[in-house]
Order: sequence, then structure tokens, then C-alpha cells
Amino acid sequence: MDMTTEKMMMSMTGMPKDMMSMDMSMMDMKMMQDCIDACVAAEQATLMCADAGSGDNMGKMMSMCANTADQTNSMMRMMMRPMGYDMGMMMAMLEATMVMCRACADECMMHADMSDHCRMCAEVCMNCATACEALMTSMKSMMV
Amino acid sequence: MDMTTEKMMMSMTGMPKDMMSMDMSMMDMKMMQDCIDACVAAEQATLMCADAGSGDNMGKMMSMCANTADQTNSMMRMMMRPMGYDMGMMMAMLEATMVMCRACADECMMHADMSDHCRMCAEVCMNCATACEALMTSMKSMMV
Amino acid sequence: MDMTTEKMMMSMTGMPKDMMSMDMSMMDMKMMQDCIDACVAAEQATLMCADAGSGDNMGKMMSMCANTADQTNSMMRMMMRPMGYDMGMMMAMLEATMVMCRACADECMMHADMSDHCRMCAEVCMNCATACEALMTSMKSMMV
Amino acid sequence: MDMTTEKMMMSMTGMPKDMMSMDMSMMDMKMMQDCIDACVAAEQATLMCADAGSGDNMGKMMSMCANTADQTNSMMRMMMRPMGYDMGMMMAMLEATMVMCRACADECMMHADMSDHCRMCAEVCMNCATACEALMTSMKSMMV
Repeated sequence: MDMTTEKMMMSMTGMPKDMMSMDMSMMDMKMMQDCIDACVAAEQATLMCADAGSGDNMGKMMSMCANTADQTNSMMRMMMRPMGYDMGMMMAMLEATMVMCRACADECMMHADMSDHCRMCAEVCMNCATACEALMTSMKSMMV
Repeated sequence: MDMTTEKMMMSMTGMPKDMMSMDMSMMDMKMMQDCIDACVAAEQATLMCADAGSGDNMGKMMSMCANTADQTNSMMRMMMRPMGYDMGMMMAMLEATMVMCRACADECMMHADMSDHCRMCAEVCMNCATACEALMTSMKSMMV
Repeated sequence: MDMTTEKMMMSMTGMPKDMMSMDMSMMDMKMMQDCIDACVAAEQATLMCADAGSGDNMGKMMSMCANTADQTNSMMRMMMRPMGYDMGMMMAMLEATMVMCRACADECMMHADMSDHCRMCAEVCMNCATACEALMTSMKSMMV
Repeated sequence: MDMTTEKMMMSMTGMPKDMMSMDMSMMDMKMMQDCIDACVAAEQATLMCADAGSGDNMGKMMSMCANTADQTNSMMRMMMRPMGYDMGMMMAMLEATMVMCRACADECMMHADMSDHCRMCAEVCMNCATACEALMTSMKSMMV
């Protein structure tokens, strides 16, 4: 799967620059690929964590996981659509995804002792938040 | 459909407050209902606009519409999950949805003369941005 | 919202027939509009039911609701994209959505005595299954 | 990412059997993991193909890709929620996903000569259809 995504990303960088809405040649494609992978992993981890979590006092955690699953999917999809790349939209979405992943990780970490799913989900969400932040930092440096 | 959503929202406000993660009694439920409806309308308008848009120089518009469809769906879903209500997450998501809807409306407005779909989509997206902003303003006043 | 969807559907029927992949002039657009509304209602009801359901023995119900929310959204999206209308794909998706909604309604009905969310969700899902079946029947009659 | 999914799937098989709605011990988890990966790959390939496709006579292809992206995501999500595993629902969804992927692959193959995105998308979709079919065959053999 990674192989395929990588091949497609490479074909993307090979597109004529005037077909891109944002100057892709300045984007760190390796960093964006990492962010896409981190989003897919976070979507899967939160889906599974939400599913496994039924029980007392797990309602908030399950709901936050479900929200994070949706947001990481929307974020991933946006990155797969280079024709619509737009700096302002991308920054707002990365910011929201980072906030969601961090809050979800914090909540899941509270249940980490009792649940392997929660511990893994917290790790994967923190990783996704980090990947979003790295991409934001890289994009900000392009705007100078 | 509105009827059903309204009935469900009412059943939500009837839930014990300690089951809520945020103090729902202070939330303006009518305003949230408006925002949910605005998100569904924006999702449908952007989906249809993206679908109708094939042709020269429509790539960016279609891509932005597809992104906005995903984000308005994620936003709607979050509002349908009261167990996970969290002020920080909600504000970050409303902000991102507002940015997406405004940018999508701006882009679609450029094609409004030639396309009814684009003109309607721009209107519906502006309405969704307004609903998100109203909810954010209302939530900020709760935090004082 | 319904107003907007109706206006957009009307603009769709006004499209040149050769832009459609399937002969839209034979489609019962009122029936499709009903199916779209039923899918949105089912997505919202299942999202809320899954969210409200934490507790003992609710795991299967919550998971089935979450699955049905995703499928009714995918079904709705497909109907909002007339450029891609294809008889075989549409029938397979309507069939799957009908199966999902019926199974979800059956599961939720078991908890209907204890939970208003489950009872409402069961009703809305049955309504969606009926709308999908009606559309399938109507499409089959076109194929004769 | 695969690493994480694999770890989570393994933790899933370690769950008490009475927590599962279907007898997971009989499921071929490697085959399901392959199907999940194939769905993620198909979602990403169709998203990118739909985005790259603007131009004359590409409307149907783009629309079919967008529909397939949604359906493969719904299918993946269902497989990530073991609490709700249900034979009838799973079979109906695998059938629909297989039909969608095959039709999308057929359409994209028509544009394969002119577009690398279409050729890759067709390959990835055929692979996903094959993975769905393999899982269906495996599940049918369990029902004897």
C-alpha cells in the first residue's frame, strides 16, 4: 500500500507546475507522505479504539475517537487532491487535525493502563499530531 | 428529516447533565441545529458542484468542493456526538470548517456567471461559514 | 436545507441528457430525493444512537450504528453525483444500504424499550431501507 | 502504518471470543488485513485519480472514482469495528465494494493510455475487488 501511495505521490510531483494551485515544487513531499500515512494510521487506530471501548466511563473517549477518525480521514483526503492545494485551507485543516489528535491522545492515555487499544491509539494520535505540526512548520517557512 | 433531527436534539437536551462532557445547558441548541443543517446543505451542494464541474479550468474548484464536502461532514458528525463535546476541539473544528467554506465559496463565486451549481454552492457555503461563526461566537461568550 | 437540495435536484434534471451516464429522464427524481433525505436522516440517527449507547451489552449496537452511518453517507454521496450514475453500481449500493439499515434497525429495536435513541434510530433506519428498496424497484422497472 | 494495523489486528484476535459478534477465531485475519490494506490503497488511488482527471469526457470517470473512494473507506471502517461483525452485513458490503471497484477499474482502464493516474487507479481497484472476493469466498466456506 505504501508502495502505491509513494508511486502516486511521485507521479504527482511530476505534474506540470501550472496544474498545481500551490507551488508544489517547494513542498516537502516526503513530509506530506509521512503526514498522509500518519493520518491513515490514526483513522484506523481511533476507529478500533472507539469500537473496543464500550463500558463504564468510556463514552467521552469513544466519541472523541470517532471524531478524530473522521477528521484524520478528511485531512488525508485533502492531501490526496493536489489540484485544490491552498495554503490557507491547508493550514486551517492541519491546525484542527493537530488539536483533535492531541486531545484524543490525552483522553486515551487516561485509559492506557487498562486498555492496549487506548495506549496504542494515544501513541498513533500523538504521532499524527507531530506529523501535522511538522508539515505546518515546513509550510510556514515557505511563506517567508 | 429536520423533524427527526429536531426530535433527537431535544432528546439530547433531556439527557442528564453529568453525561455530557460540556455543559450543554448553556449551549444554544437552536444555533447548533442550524449549524448541523447548514453543514448537511454545504456537503450536498459541494458534492453536486464538484460533480458538475468537469471542464477547462475547473480542477481547483472541484477539488476545493470535494475537500469542503468532507470537512462539513466531519463537522456535522462531531455535533451529533454530544458525549465527546469538548470546547477546544469544537472551536478548532468550527474554525477550520469556516475557513474551508469561505475559500470554497470564493472560488465557486468566480464561476457563478457560467454555472448555476457554482452560484448555489457559493451561497450554501457562505451560509455554512456564517453558521459556524455564530456558533463560535456563542461558545466564546460562554467561556467568560 | 431541503429547499436547497430540491433546487439543486431540479437543476440536475435540467442538465443536457447526454451529460448523464444513465438516462435520467426515466428516473423518478422525487423518489431519489426521498432516498437522499432518508439517508441523511439515517446517518444522523445512527451517529447519535452510537454516541448515546455506551454501557453494558451495547457494543454490537454501537458498532452497527457506526457502520450504517458510514454506508448511508456513501449512498447519499453517490446519488449527489449524477455524472457517475451507473445502473450496476447503483443497484449494488442500494442493496448493501438496505441490508445495513435493516440489520441496524433490528439490533436497535432490541434496545428500544430502554432507549429513546434506539427506538428513533430503528424507525429512521427502517424508513431508509424502505426508500432504498423503492428506488431499486423503480430502477428495475426501467430495465425491462 | 502497516506495523500499527498489524499490531492492532493481533490485539483484536486476542479479545475474548464472547465479545465478538461473529466467531473471529474462524476468520482468516491475514486475509482481512489484506482487504483493509487494499481498501486504503483504493481510496487513495481513486481520490487522486478523481482529482487529476479534469478535462473533456472525464466527468463519468471522476464521479465513479469519488464514489469508489467513499465506499472503500466505509468498507475499511467496518472491518476495523469487530464488535459489530455480522455475516449478512459484511457479505452485502463486500459485494457492493467489489462491484464498485470493478466498474471503476473498467472505466479508468479506458483512459489508461493517456493517464498514469488512471492506469494505477485501475490496478489498485482491481486488487481491491480481488481482496473483497477472496474474503467473501473465505466467509462462505465458514458458513457450511
